[in-house]
Order: sequence, then C-alpha cells, then structure tokens
Amino acid sequence: MLASAEIGHRIAREDYLREEPALREGLLNAQYDLLERKRGPILVLISGIEGGGRGETANQLTAWMDPRHVRVNAFGPPTAEELAHPPAYRYWRALPPSGKIGVFMNAWYRDLFAGREPGELDAQSLDAGVRRVRQFERMLADEGVTLLKFWIHLSRAALKERVHELTADPATRWRVTAEDRRAVRRYSRSHALWEHVLRESSTGAAPWNVVEGSDPRYRNLTIGKLLLDAMRHAARHGGTARPSQQPARPTPSVIDNVKLIRDLDLSQTLAPERYPALLAKWQARLAAATRDKRFRRHALVAVFEGADAAGKGSALRRVTGALDARQYLLVPTGAPNDEERAHPYLWRFWRHVPARGGVTLFDRSWYGRVLVERIEEFCSVADWTRAYEEINHFEQQLADAGVIVVKFWLQISKREQLARFKAREQTSFKRFKITQEDWRNRKKWSHYERAVADMVDRTSTEIAPWTLVEADDKRHARIKVLRTLVKRVEAAIDR
Amino acid sequence: MLASAEIGHRIAREDYLREEPALREGLLNAQYDLLERKRGPILVLISGIEGGGRGETANQLTAWMDPRHVRVNAFGPPTAEELAHPPAYRYWRALPPSGKIGVFMNAWYRDLFAGREPGELDAQSLDAGVRRVRQFERMLADEGVTLLKFWIHLSRAALKERVHELTADPATRWRVTAEDRRAVRRYSRSHALWEHVLRESSTGAAPWNVVEGSDPRYRNLTIGKLLLDAMRHAARHGGTARPSQQPARPTPSVIDNVKLIRDLDLSQTLAPERYPALLAKWQARLAAATRDKRFRRHALVAVFEGADAAGKGSALRRVTGALDARQYLLVPTGAPNDEERAHPYLWRFWRHVPARGGVTLFDRSWYGRVLVERIEEFCSVADWTRAYEEINHFEQQLADAGVIVVKFWLQISKREQLARFKAREQTSFKRFKITQEDWRNRKKWSHYERAVADMVDRTSTEIAPWTLVEADDKRHARIKVLRTLVKRVEAAIDR
Repeated sequence: MLASAEIGHRIAREDYLREEPALREGLLNAQYDLLERKRGPILVLISGIEGGGRGETANQLTAWMDPRHVRVNAFGPPTAEELAHPPAYRYWRALPPSGKIGVFMNAWYRDLFAGREPGELDAQSLDAGVRRVRQFERMLADEGVTLLKFWIHLSRAALKERVHELTADPATRWRVTAEDRRAVRRYSRSHALWEHVLRESSTGAAPWNVVEGSDPRYRNLTIGKLLLDAMRHAARHGGTARPSQQPARPTPSVIDNVKLIRDLDLSQTLAPERYPALLAKWQARLAAATRDKRFRRHALVAVFEGADAAGKGSALRRVTGALDARQYLLVPTGAPNDEERAHPYLWRFWRHVPARGGVTLFDRSWYGRVLVERIEEFCSVADWTRAYEEINHFEQQLADAGVIVVKFWLQISKREQLARFKAREQTSFKRFKITQEDWRNRKKWSHYERAVADMVDRTSTEIAPWTLVEADDKRHARIKVLRTLVKRVEAAIDR
Repeated sequence: MLASAEIGHRIAREDYLREEPALREGLLNAQYDLLERKRGPILVLISGIEGGGRGETANQLTAWMDPRHVRVNAFGPPTAEELAHPPAYRYWRALPPSGKIGVFMNAWYRDLFAGREPGELDAQSLDAGVRRVRQFERMLADEGVTLLKFWIHLSRAALKERVHELTADPATRWRVTAEDRRAVRRYSRSHALWEHVLRESSTGAAPWNVVEGSDPRYRNLTIGKLLLDAMRHAARHGGTARPSQQPARPTPSVIDNVKLIRDLDLSQTLAPERYPALLAKWQARLAAATRDKRFRRHALVAVFEGADAAGKGSALRRVTGALDARQYLLVPTGAPNDEERAHPYLWRFWRHVPARGGVTLFDRSWYGRVLVERIEEFCSVADWTRAYEEINHFEQQLADAGVIVVKFWLQISKREQLARFKAREQTSFKRFKITQEDWRNRKKWSHYERAVADMVDRTSTEIAPWTLVEADDKRHARIKVLRTLVKRVEAAIDR
C-alpha cells in the first residue's frame, strides 16, 4: 500500500495556485450544505509517520474552511480522567455532531502502535486491536458518520532528508527530537508494521488514503480534494456508502425463544417476615463491596429494564439505599435531547460511563434500541438488527476496562401489571401516575415479549449476562437484584 | 448564628416516625411538579463541621426522593483538568438543569476555608472570597436557581463525644482521623471563622440554615422540611424570592455615550501594498507568543462582536491562520440548544473556557444578552440590566486565573454595510448569504448603536477592555485585531 506514496509526487506551484481557489470555494460551500442539511458529521482522521506534515495538514484544512464548524482534536497523552475510563471514552466525547467536521490526529491508531516495537508483528494482540478498530469504524459509518482516513507517508530517503534539513538550519534545529532520529534508523523495520495495520484496517466502510507528504502542495491538494468529494457525497446522500446497511431483513427469531420469558416462574414469592433481614443483609454487603479499596480498580454499570410498573424504580431505590450518594449516578433514559440526537446512538450512554471507583445505574438504557425503538419503528430494521452486535462490543469495552456490567430484566405477568396500574390510579404519589402511553404499551405485550426474548438471546454474554427477575412479588425481585449485584461485585474484587 | 445550634435539639423516635411518611410523599410530589413544569433547578448546598453528618444527610435526601432526578456532587480534590481552569469551572459544569435537584457538598465554601488557619480572620483576602461567593449566589438566584444552604453544626461537647464514641468502638475506630482529633482541639478558634463567614455570606437571595447535627432525626427532618418548602415555592413561583429582581427600570443611558461609536474614524484605511507584510509580521508574532513556553501558564479568550457583515469572520480567519489548529477552539454563538437553555445563562460559555495553554475564540458571545436579547426583548429588562455586572464578574474570574480576555467590537458604517450586503447577494460563497434577518437587523441600526455604547461603557474594565475596531476597511481592521491580540498576549507573558 505504501510504495505508491514513496515515489515523489509533486505539484508545480502554478498548478497549485490555479486549483486552490476552486477547491477552497468548493469546501466552504460543501461545508454550508452539510450544516444546513445537518448531514454528516465528517470525521477526518490524520495519521502517518513522524515528520510527514500531519499538523500542517490540519492547519491547512481549517484555513480553507470556515473554522467555526471544524474542530481539531490533538489527543495528546490521556488525562487522569481519561485514564480512569475505557480507552474509547475520549474519542466518543470528541465526536462531532451532525453538520460539523472533526479532525482527529492519530486517535485510536496511536493506541494501536503504542508500545509496539517496529517490525514486531505479535499477531494476536495486534489483531485484537485492529478488530476493535474495525468494529468501531463500521459502527460510525452505519451511524451516518463519514470517516476519512489519511495516512501521510514519506519514503525513507525523504524522511532522512527532512531531518537533515531541519538539523542544518539553526532556526529549526530545536524541532528535531531524538524520536525523529530514531524514526529514521527504524524506518525499514517499522514499514512492515505500518503496512500490516493499514491493510488490515482498510475496509469498505473506512478505507485508508495513503498520501505522500514530502511535497506540501501535493499533500494538501490531494487531501483537500478527497475531503471535498466526501463532503459533497455526504451532503447529498448523508454519510458514507454504509456497506453494512444493505437492505436488511429482520433476522428470523429463534423459534420459541419467547418460552424463555413465558416460562419464568412468576409465582415465586418471598415471605414478608423474612424480607427485612434479607434486605439489611444484602444492602450491607453491597455497601461494603462498593466501599472496598479493591473496588477502586473497577466500576459498576447496572442496567434496569422491564415493562411499565414492573418495579424498576422501587428496586433501584433499594440499590441506591446501599450506596454512598457521592459515589453513584442514576441516569433515567427518556427521549434524547437535541445534542444527543446529533451524535451516534451510543454517545449519550458513553457520556455517563463511570470512572474507576464509580457506579452508574441506568433506568432503561441502550437496550431501548431493540425494545421500544424496534417496536415503535423509531429506527430502521437495519438499525436495530445491527444494534445487538454494537451493544456487545460496547459492553466488551467496558468489561475490558474493569467495569462490572450487570443487566436486569424485570418480568411481571400481564395480570399483575393490570392490578398495579389500577392501584396507581388511586395513589397520591405523582411519580407513579399512569399515562395513556402506559396503556398503549400494554396492548403491545406480545411484541415486547418477542423483542425481550431476542434481546436476551443475542446480548447475554459471559462478561455481561442478563439476569431475568421474576417481579410479580416485589420483595422477591428486590432481593434477587441486590444479591446478583453483590455476587458480581464481590466476584470481581476477589479475583 | 451558631449558638442556636449548640443546644441539643432532638426529635423523639415516635414523632419522627409519625412525620416522615408525609414528608417523603411531599418531597416526591414536589419533585414531580418541578420536573413537569421545568422549574428550578434546586441546588442544595450542604456544608458544616467535620462529623456533623453531611454525607448521611445527602444519602437521606436521595433516599426520600426519586434518585433519578437528584445528583450529589462530592467535589473532592480538584482533578488536573479542573486545576487548569478557573476555580468556578467545576461548579458551573455540575449545575443541575431546570427541573432537577443538585446536592453540592461544601463546594465553594471549602475553597473559602481551605488553607486558612482557624481563628485567622485575615480580613482582606477572606472578604474578597466572600464577595465573590455572594456575587455568584446572587447570580444563581437571579437566574431562577433555588439555592438552599445548610450548615450542619455540632457543639464542641457533641463533637468531642462523637469522636470519643467512634474511637471506643473497634468497628468504627478506623473512621476517626487525625483531622477529626485536630478539629476538636481547634474548635473554639474555628468558631469565630465559621461565624464570620456564615454571617457575611448569608444574604436575602441565599441565607444559611444552621442545623444542629447531633441528632440525625432532628437534622434530617429539619432539612427535609426546609427543602420541601423551597421546592413547593419553586414549583409555584419558579425560583427563590429573587430580591434583586425588583421591577427594574432600565438604567438611564449615559447621555450621548453613543458619540463614542459615532465618532470612530471609519475612513481609516491601510494601503493594500503595505498589508501583506504587516499581516505576515503580526501573524508570526501571534504564532510565536501563543507557542511560547510562558503562554502555558495563561490562556486566551477573545470575543468578536460586530454588526452583520462587519468582517468578524474574515478577521477570525487571520487569527486562526496564526494559531495551531490543535490549540484553539472557535465557538460560534447562535440560539442556545435545549441543554443550554435549561441552565443559567453563562453556563454555555463556561463550558468552553480554555484550560491553561489553550485559546478559545468566540464568534459572538455572552454579550448577546445586552445586544440582540435586549433589542429583540428575548429577555426581561431586569435580566439584561443585571447582565453587565455578571459579565464583569465572569471576566474577572477568568483574569484571576491567568486568562487573557480580549474583546473586539467591529464597527462599520451603515453605507458600507449596504454595499457589502449587495456584494454578497452576488457571491458564490454560500457562507456569506444574506438573510431576511440581516435586513431586519439593519433597520434597528440606532438601537444597536445605543446598546453597543452601553455595553462598552459598562463592561470596559482594566482587566478586559473593549477594543473598538474601525472596520470599513477590512485590511485596517484585521491588522488592528492581530496587533491588539499580540500586544495583550506579549504583555501577559512578559510580566
């Protein structure tokens, strides 16, 4: 892949001067089309070898465009806050909203190369990293992000010459670091690693553009034109080709997986006289486990899903009752606000991923995509069918970073729901009010059963299994929730 | 103030059990009223002496209410990111949106006591701190935030007894720190400092509620009831009494301050042949100054205001052309999004305050309040008249933290604006399109003149002066902007 960018591409000054004004006008206009139609966003990822002119390229792109709608992210050494979160956290936080352009310097490719000796092709861990990158980039493309990746390259001779030139001039000598000189020495050995990573991470959704960096005019004009093409395409069609979004048919449900839900023994009860002691016991153990020193190397994410009136709120209160209010965050998930809507789906949940030592409880969650959004047709079939895999990747990243992921589905019988709805109509607690929507949802009971069964089927993983909670008896449900949390947290910190 | 909280208030268990259920129901219902009407937010600030039960109080409040709409912020030691910003940054970022409840532990009062020896009443610096706190709290009240401050107190005897009890029990002995024992020894000397700060920071907008902490039932019930009263009031009337919002008449303008604007010599030009060399010179100096090592102890905030077509955008491009794209952020200010609308006015600008070493350029800014919002009556007269002072406080906080604040008003003549509007109607650059709104604004020319004159009068401070830029000649304007920035940055880093 790289050889074609080692042959000394150049553009003559007069050619550059002739082409540049039209390019600039094109970029500005395309930018405004994107903004008006809220298409995109466009994510320009600039990577490549030391000294190829990555920073200069970023500066040129913002100089050509309206800098109010471009944001460059350098991604220097991660801050303490970033280190306390999964690696992808900082990239999610920096994703541009639709209509805008983000320029990411190196980003996740730096993580891929970091700590790896040039020439070292330790296949296993490198390939795992590349796989995660491919998943992430495909998700971005599926979410309508146009991802443009540029690898700015120099031949060994060009790199050597550049270091030489900088060293020769007293005004620029200070810019040459030991790092640069080492890059020259290691060039040949690094080459194989670059080739490998570029080849493996070049996909239909996000191919690499390798651009020779030795001539700034050639480099900038080439990148500018590729960017313009992509912006025009995005303004017209809204995103990259989205190859994984071929007209998808809903994956056929596993026959009778609904049995899983229907077969739950909802008659399970917990005797009222046993409840207070059990509640005190499990709350105390949860309090102790989350205050344990070893918990500071972990974090806890707990998801609460269930039908209306299944008792999510009351179960959550027993959980928060055991936690220190300064340590946890409870996130209710409703309709997204406009900032959330302008970003890829999982963005609003990534925002709330806890730092090490923290706890986030989600009252409804990212599973909305495969439940309410599937049933109400708020998203396309393609969107919710790919969501299962994206969710599994998301939870895998949490688990990899030491986050304990616990997921509860609270199941009640249709009869019990009716009884609770009726009781609530009498209550003086406004938070329990029954709305028209609750009654409407109730009519879709069998749709939900099927969606829940599919969800549990496809997202119950070893690192983040679902716990189905028989919730007709509230005491039984609460104790099961607490006990499950305690067991998972204790297992994690005892390891 | 404190004596009344040292007399051993208690509540009997049976009284507590009788009152608690009604309080809980009241709190939950009030919470839902707030949420539905998007009133508030409510900010509960809990401070007080070590061992008084601040953490337990926070836990009890979240246990009583729906924890999905309450967020407790502990404000531990500031993170590296927080330290790189002005002190108030972390509090602004944590402000709850309307409809919600935030519980802040100690917050800015910890900063006030930090590093101060008990009994030390070094009037000057303490009073400066208290004054800033009063300004901040009054602004919150004016913005509709209900601020409830609780000082949880213990008499010396009660504190001593508590430390003694904890030490006696092997299960709790570890919780007693050297800090606690020192607090007992220093109690009498600290007392004067507490009294002073509480008295000075108790205002009509945000009075202190001193609550005795020795009996948890008394403490929690008292605080719960005060909170309930405040929530009910906020749900009905939307915010605290807002004493500074007495029906305000617009402050009469200084007679003829509009002369300031009208007298600008807009015939100033810069000869085209001199422009390229001057541009190169000042851009190079700006590049050097912002890349200087000493700049890392500062940050730069530059505000660009001006009539439509005054050339803000083109001046900004000359500034960004000199900066490293990885170092600056350019924030265009348009209509607020819904998250911004749910917070106090300045919140959306605090979000973008740069960390040390950073640059934020605002294309329009917080001055919108005293320009477009005043003229279009998007806010009340009381809102924009108090804005001058709030803005001065905001900029003072930036300057105190080493941020260089530079503000430009670009002035063009009415004739020149017309010429530019007409030229733009011919242009092929979409970003320059003239809208109906531009023509409407033009009709309000004299209103803007007066608003600008008032703005410059009232917000030109020594630490953040306005620079009026004669902008009929674009070259003159750009060079003046660059030169001003360079001088200010160089002066700051040379100091």
